[in-house]
Amino acid sequence: MAPTRVIHPAQDDDHFHDECGVFGVYNHPEAANLTYLGLHGLQHRGQESAGIVSSSGDRLHEERGMGHVARVFKKTQLRRLKGDLAIGHVRYSTAGKSNLENAQPFVIESCKGEIGVAHNGNLVNAVAVRDRLEKDGSIFRTSSDTEVVLHLIARSKQDGLEAAIVDALKQMQGAYSLIFITRDRIIGVRDPRGFRPLSLGRLGESQVLSSESCAFDLIDATFVRDVEPGEMVVIGPAGVKSYRPFPPEPVSQCIFEYVYFSRPDSQVFGRSVHEIRKRLGRELAKEQPVDADVVVPVPDSGMYAGLGFSEQSRIPLEFGLVRNHYVGRTFIEPRQAIRHFGVKLKLNPVRALLSDKRVVLIDDSIVRGTTSRKIVSMVRSAGAREVHVRISCAPTVGPCYYGVDTPRRSELIASSHTVDEIRRYIRADSLGYLSLEGMYRAVGENRSFCTACYTNDYPVPFPKEEEAHGMVPGRR
Amino acid sequence: MAPTRVIHPAQDDDHFHDECGVFGVYNHPEAANLTYLGLHGLQHRGQESAGIVSSSGDRLHEERGMGHVARVFKKTQLRRLKGDLAIGHVRYSTAGKSNLENAQPFVIESCKGEIGVAHNGNLVNAVAVRDRLEKDGSIFRTSSDTEVVLHLIARSKQDGLEAAIVDALKQMQGAYSLIFITRDRIIGVRDPRGFRPLSLGRLGESQVLSSESCAFDLIDATFVRDVEPGEMVVIGPAGVKSYRPFPPEPVSQCIFEYVYFSRPDSQVFGRSVHEIRKRLGRELAKEQPVDADVVVPVPDSGMYAGLGFSEQSRIPLEFGLVRNHYVGRTFIEPRQAIRHFGVKLKLNPVRALLSDKRVVLIDDSIVRGTTSRKIVSMVRSAGAREVHVRISCAPTVGPCYYGVDTPRRSELIASSHTVDEIRRYIRADSLGYLSLEGMYRAVGENRSFCTACYTNDYPVPFPKEEEAHGMVPGRR
Amino acid sequence: MAPTRVIHPAQDDDHFHDECGVFGVYNHPEAANLTYLGLHGLQHRGQESAGIVSSSGDRLHEERGMGHVARVFKKTQLRRLKGDLAIGHVRYSTAGKSNLENAQPFVIESCKGEIGVAHNGNLVNAVAVRDRLEKDGSIFRTSSDTEVVLHLIARSKQDGLEAAIVDALKQMQGAYSLIFITRDRIIGVRDPRGFRPLSLGRLGESQVLSSESCAFDLIDATFVRDVEPGEMVVIGPAGVKSYRPFPPEPVSQCIFEYVYFSRPDSQVFGRSVHEIRKRLGRELAKEQPVDADVVVPVPDSGMYAGLGFSEQSRIPLEFGLVRNHYVGRTFIEPRQAIRHFGVKLKLNPVRALLSDKRVVLIDDSIVRGTTSRKIVSMVRSAGAREVHVRISCAPTVGPCYYGVDTPRRSELIASSHTVDEIRRYIRADSLGYLSLEGMYRAVGENRSFCTACYTNDYPVPFPKEEEAHGMVPGRR
Amino acid sequence: MAPTRVIHPAQDDDHFHDECGVFGVYNHPEAANLTYLGLHGLQHRGQESAGIVSSSGDRLHEERGMGHVARVFKKTQLRRLKGDLAIGHVRYSTAGKSNLENAQPFVIESCKGEIGVAHNGNLVNAVAVRDRLEKDGSIFRTSSDTEVVLHLIARSKQDGLEAAIVDALKQMQGAYSLIFITRDRIIGVRDPRGFRPLSLGRLGESQVLSSESCAFDLIDATFVRDVEPGEMVVIGPAGVKSYRPFPPEPVSQCIFEYVYFSRPDSQVFGRSVHEIRKRLGRELAKEQPVDADVVVPVPDSGMYAGLGFSEQSRIPLEFGLVRNHYVGRTFIEPRQAIRHFGVKLKLNPVRALLSDKRVVLIDDSIVRGTTSRKIVSMVRSAGAREVHVRISCAPTVGPCYYGVDTPRRSELIASSHTVDEIRRYIRADSLGYLSLEGMYRAVGENRSFCTACYTNDYPVPFPKEEEAHGMVPGRR
Repeated sequence: MAPTRVIHPAQDDDHFHDECGVFGVYNHPEAANLTYLGLHGLQHRGQESAGIVSSSGDRLHEERGMGHVARVFKKTQLRRLKGDLAIGHVRYSTAGKSNLENAQPFVIESCKGEIGVAHNGNLVNAVAVRDRLEKDGSIFRTSSDTEVVLHLIARSKQDGLEAAIVDALKQMQGAYSLIFITRDRIIGVRDPRGFRPLSLGRLGESQVLSSESCAFDLIDATFVRDVEPGEMVVIGPAGVKSYRPFPPEPVSQCIFEYVYFSRPDSQVFGRSVHEIRKRLGRELAKEQPVDADVVVPVPDSGMYAGLGFSEQSRIPLEFGLVRNHYVGRTFIEPRQAIRHFGVKLKLNPVRALLSDKRVVLIDDSIVRGTTSRKIVSMVRSAGAREVHVRISCAPTVGPCYYGVDTPRRSELIASSHTVDEIRRYIRADSLGYLSLEGMYRAVGENRSFCTACYTNDYPVPFPKEEEAHGMVPGRR
Repeated sequence: MAPTRVIHPAQDDDHFHDECGVFGVYNHPEAANLTYLGLHGLQHRGQESAGIVSSSGDRLHEERGMGHVARVFKKTQLRRLKGDLAIGHVRYSTAGKSNLENAQPFVIESCKGEIGVAHNGNLVNAVAVRDRLEKDGSIFRTSSDTEVVLHLIARSKQDGLEAAIVDALKQMQGAYSLIFITRDRIIGVRDPRGFRPLSLGRLGESQVLSSESCAFDLIDATFVRDVEPGEMVVIGPAGVKSYRPFPPEPVSQCIFEYVYFSRPDSQVFGRSVHEIRKRLGRELAKEQPVDADVVVPVPDSGMYAGLGFSEQSRIPLEFGLVRNHYVGRTFIEPRQAIRHFGVKLKLNPVRALLSDKRVVLIDDSIVRGTTSRKIVSMVRSAGAREVHVRISCAPTVGPCYYGVDTPRRSELIASSHTVDEIRRYIRADSLGYLSLEGMYRAVGENRSFCTACYTNDYPVPFPKEEEAHGMVPGRR
Repeated sequence: MAPTRVIHPAQDDDHFHDECGVFGVYNHPEAANLTYLGLHGLQHRGQESAGIVSSSGDRLHEERGMGHVARVFKKTQLRRLKGDLAIGHVRYSTAGKSNLENAQPFVIESCKGEIGVAHNGNLVNAVAVRDRLEKDGSIFRTSSDTEVVLHLIARSKQDGLEAAIVDALKQMQGAYSLIFITRDRIIGVRDPRGFRPLSLGRLGESQVLSSESCAFDLIDATFVRDVEPGEMVVIGPAGVKSYRPFPPEPVSQCIFEYVYFSRPDSQVFGRSVHEIRKRLGRELAKEQPVDADVVVPVPDSGMYAGLGFSEQSRIPLEFGLVRNHYVGRTFIEPRQAIRHFGVKLKLNPVRALLSDKRVVLIDDSIVRGTTSRKIVSMVRSAGAREVHVRISCAPTVGPCYYGVDTPRRSELIASSHTVDEIRRYIRADSLGYLSLEGMYRAVGENRSFCTACYTNDYPVPFPKEEEAHGMVPGRR
Repeated sequence: MAPTRVIHPAQDDDHFHDECGVFGVYNHPEAANLTYLGLHGLQHRGQESAGIVSSSGDRLHEERGMGHVARVFKKTQLRRLKGDLAIGHVRYSTAGKSNLENAQPFVIESCKGEIGVAHNGNLVNAVAVRDRLEKDGSIFRTSSDTEVVLHLIARSKQDGLEAAIVDALKQMQGAYSLIFITRDRIIGVRDPRGFRPLSLGRLGESQVLSSESCAFDLIDATFVRDVEPGEMVVIGPAGVKSYRPFPPEPVSQCIFEYVYFSRPDSQVFGRSVHEIRKRLGRELAKEQPVDADVVVPVPDSGMYAGLGFSEQSRIPLEFGLVRNHYVGRTFIEPRQAIRHFGVKLKLNPVRALLSDKRVVLIDDSIVRGTTSRKIVSMVRSAGAREVHVRISCAPTVGPCYYGVDTPRRSELIASSHTVDEIRRYIRADSLGYLSLEGMYRAVGENRSFCTACYTNDYPVPFPKEEEAHGMVPGRR
């Protein structure tokens, strides 16, 4: 009897997902090799494709491919990436089809010369600008919003590339942490609201840019500072120059970088991610206490919050769910019905730790609720007497339009259900979310964050949902 | 001891090479599958990459890959190519690096909608137009001249795609047999001089376009007629419409399609290829007679000319060179010196047929002379008493700028050497070329051909050689 | 500048490694599919190769390949594995070259019919028996000790396969958990000392065998009991039959299965692995207390012991080392010297958790000491004030000859160095191992274990080290 | 609409097929590289798998893989094949499944040391001997008859490997051209009847063995002589020694090597293949004359016979069928019915050469008749007025048991149909075979040939058909 279904465990994951990580190196004889390592350190921000563009001074060199960094780049590819400066990109796949066309960095030739660009974020007015550009005779080969920026740069009447970049970005709204490369420089820009992170580091005489500081650690570079919201950093023969070309706007950094996206060993928006994550667990324990026997974090993302919850609540932590790290990209499901199949490929309950216990499950979010429902059920099958779910952030009620891959609003269970309805759906004995105020306490009462997915309070207006979702409805 | 060199037999081939084949199907429920077969029938026109774009009415679907048609397209790829109309492309690699970016058909989105295009030919003023477009703010992602046409279409002020195509092509000079696809139609265009072939066929209620008619045979379609030089054929919901939008120019069809490029079972420019090829051999025997024992064609391309030569000269034909069809893309050469290694991987002399014989070797061209020299030497090593080389066309003195991959002029041995010098270089006992007049006799005194590679008489002016060769020096 | 070295992170791991996992299913219409899942659940026991053999009653079907289970088995392979019974095997690679010949299960044909076999363990007298068999005219196609058993079975004068298996195994010494498959039954055997685990499970009307019970969970099977040391379980048309064919011997189960090998969610040798592992941490805290600020486990293997240590010592647990799970099989190292490169690809220190702290690092073993030295140094670079290393077992002084891949004795740092010398080598402020008595306390004073690697007290004699290491020196 | 069928053009070929080619080199610093080239020259004898075994004096090295030689062996593989002596093997796949286990050369270890072997032929009593060996306790890992020989060698009581080989082969009946390799020598043996070819060559101080002499040409070696039927040639430190260890038997060399298998540029059984092949065509023209306009050979195998037929009959030769050499291993067939699809992928009729012509089609055999039927029909569709089929050998009435892959007798159309019935089935206007006497005339009245497939007169008895066909019915 033949197997019936191929499942994709990596995609069967009920989380929001970042769409990209960016990295750049200037003035290092092994610029491409270091970028390769940097991208490896940012691999959690995107596993679909990886690419590097380097400059040997006379021209740019580019290599891109589908899959993980270590798979895309072998000796042959790295050898071809000549030169002392390089930028790189990892991309998260939103859906099904592998699409090499959309893999970044993009490289184009224009009257401003050869330009490469790597982008983390999302430009909310890209469709409108693209329509205007098409009317003026531009042609588009991808569905990416990033291509729009390149057209604007090429069409800018400003003299010089930097002025053209500023000119182009002033026409765009939304989230962007961008790294450009030309034949002799790399340029980092962060949008005025600073949605997505971007950091500046140093390695001897070399300068480094990275979405997260954890990638600096890997190459022995030191964290210097964040590129500030609205700042453009030009790193070239004339040294490191900083510009503030955009009118100031209120800062709205993505708070979910702390909750889930960023690696715990990164410094992001001026704070340690793991520290915030643990504080979220502590606040959660204060707001949503529960009488239970064990605190069981859902690995890997719930670990720090689970530890915080345990410390605050004095309920002992147990590693009651074990993650299987050998999960491949695809997996064949037998006809034989297997309970919690998709979840079980990745997580296995440790029966003896759960059996007859009142369990507090700590997780970082509930998106559709389907995975939570499976986990609760699996934990219960393993003998848990009670299952109390605690989420280390507020209910996710709105999609993100600023560079995060999220389902449509209608798929977000919290957008249309009360906490108690969600509790019933996931079959938990109790369910508690951290409040927005609790989140603010965890981040030290700093209010310069975007919390749109918890509040529907979107700092930058966006077109109606259907258009915003996939950038250009008509294509790919 | 390790092997020293990897050789590339497919590239170690001293011929001119076509750069592309194009194919299109309209109004067939299996449009992509038939295009796949059509491309298989055009595989000899390009083995580097293959691509198909189909339309399901609402949008275009595209699949491209490096390598042969049968390798690029598996069930998965073909299944994704939905719709009743499709176009396809095979491309010959000019050099080294595989480059998926340059694989066609290209697909873009513009104010004229989604457009896919497959191109066989070369636009000689592409660099100049590109420079102008870049100054106007266009960005380029490939080094292909075809991308220039797409920009011109997108920027055209003409209403409607067909008018825009005409508008764009009027700005271009050179060789083009193009097939476009939009959501609801396919459009075939041939440049006013008709450098490259393009044929129209029919399969039941479906229309078909192909570089050569041999691809019609494979899918049971029937040859209807050539698309005429300067003709645009629009095949869509309104049926097949023919336009003559360009000012008339003298026709200059590529005579080398008869000599070498096209498959012998094709009808090209109104004549059977094999028939012309055999007549070239007959004319050659008349012009360049030789007293010899056997006529040995260099397989596969010299077969028909060899037969013609043998019939005319009454010297018996012998298959004294055997082709090995298992030659892979790369081959490892041992350190041990092996005589005629590269040639011997593909051709083996049949000693008993050559030994002590006066041999007439029939080949279709001498480009650099290196391969001919190896073959002559190999035939002599096999015991031939005399080796007389006869070439079924005139000496190749100039490169082609109209869509054929040729070495630079300085590498063409006949551009700087007399026939006798070439004879000495290839170590033949005698060497004879067919004259241009002989070629004309073979094609029936029809003079509507481009013979630039034999005469340096270029029907369309071209920029200086360095620029013309690789389209854009700066990039890839 | 080109990269200088390719490193293999998966091999650059200073642990002992299990050599195999075995699995079997009887009487299930999707026997091969379930075996595929079972092997996925045993993937931690071997990642080099994977194989499945099924029986369709009339004949056996086999599929094997290099790499992870999810890579070796796609729909095509699984579809070919027809039948209601199947066995499978995953193998750990001891060194360099991938060798499909050595991938199990082996299948042979003999006078006893078709037999497939999957083996976890090592037969210490295999070389001697092989020499004898070769003298009697046997031929060998692999260097595997398992092939020796098949020869003995084929040559046995005993009637019936089961008797022949017993006859053969009586001639072998060492460790074996074996699963055989014939056209109509599967047979599980565990050596009299029970070195390696083997469990019996049930799924409805089907019987299942597995190295570890965690694989039962994945397919919804229930754990029934361990196959006992010295037991042979025949599962066939006549039901499940148990035999005790071997003279009884003292039981010596591998205690390191608890310390490191087995998955924490498995039941092994009658106990929960995670529970023992946590108790090892508790005992370690009692025996080797230290005044410190944080307990940091080395993930993933040190997690449970770290939790136990923290609970016992009341020193808070912190996840101060983050594991990167995207590490590929090979990785290119730049010329640029990067500190702790190999370790850093897999582990990143969380600076803010370590900075200025007195850290207790909890790990499960020190083999060569090289990795510990890198980790200590990395933790210190991250700002730790003191680094105290605590190991949740006794010093590893001897290699294993019973189915575990270990370096030679001379490479085991504890075989020739005192604890203080090791401490100095790894540059720790203090180093403490759990005593053997402490280990016994953790496992509940049950003494039926092999502790040879901690005591050099080998329960089964073995030939001199050079021969034991690679089975047959002469071949592969 | 999805494509419906994947077809395998290489297998959809109505010919008998050779099962193997063997090659060996002694005393050359690049033994493996030369073997690689030699196998390339024998590629027509087997495309399923390729393998090489070399000796570095201390041990053997082996590499095998599925597919063509140029695909299996890359630099990495060749580099591993150290040493001054090597043997190689190419194998033809009889059916469906790729099976690396059966790829040769085999390597085993036994009391006679390490031995590698490459075999062309078939041992008709292998099943019986295998049964006996299994009863004596031998185990078998493949379904190959060659493995039987290795067991007999290992079990031989004779001293020394050569004596053991002779001892083993004396127990075997059937066809074998074998090359063995040990650490210091290579040994070539041909069965007493000499069914399959084997030649000895020389390259400087090196000795070479090859199934066909065409492989010598490729490496610049010279043909020395055939290894004689019943001869064993030992090439080692003591030089080249020749033995005649077997009782003499009448010689019965495979006449079909001349008709189809061998390459035309080979010397086989003391004669030039192309020369015999052309004489077959001449004899055919004498025996089966026909009034026609053109002689059209079916490429590539019918070319020489076609030329012979044309010369004898004075009917002009035309290349009316063009072979497409880009056919891949698999091809997707559309739902759309396409006439003669499978044949048309490989052969295209040249309409203008066939239209309104009386055509003599020259082919080398009719096996099932299915392909001939398609070709005749295709030629007729291309406009031929009459189609006369002429076959350059006698009707194929019996399967081969001596190393050739043939269908069962019941599938051979000539085994149960008269020539006129076959003519009607293939829809030819006339059909003529060459007589056996005509074949003998073509080979110069030498009668030392096996003609069993034309006469059912089998020189070596064989077991009943069902067993002989696949060696061991039970397995693979």
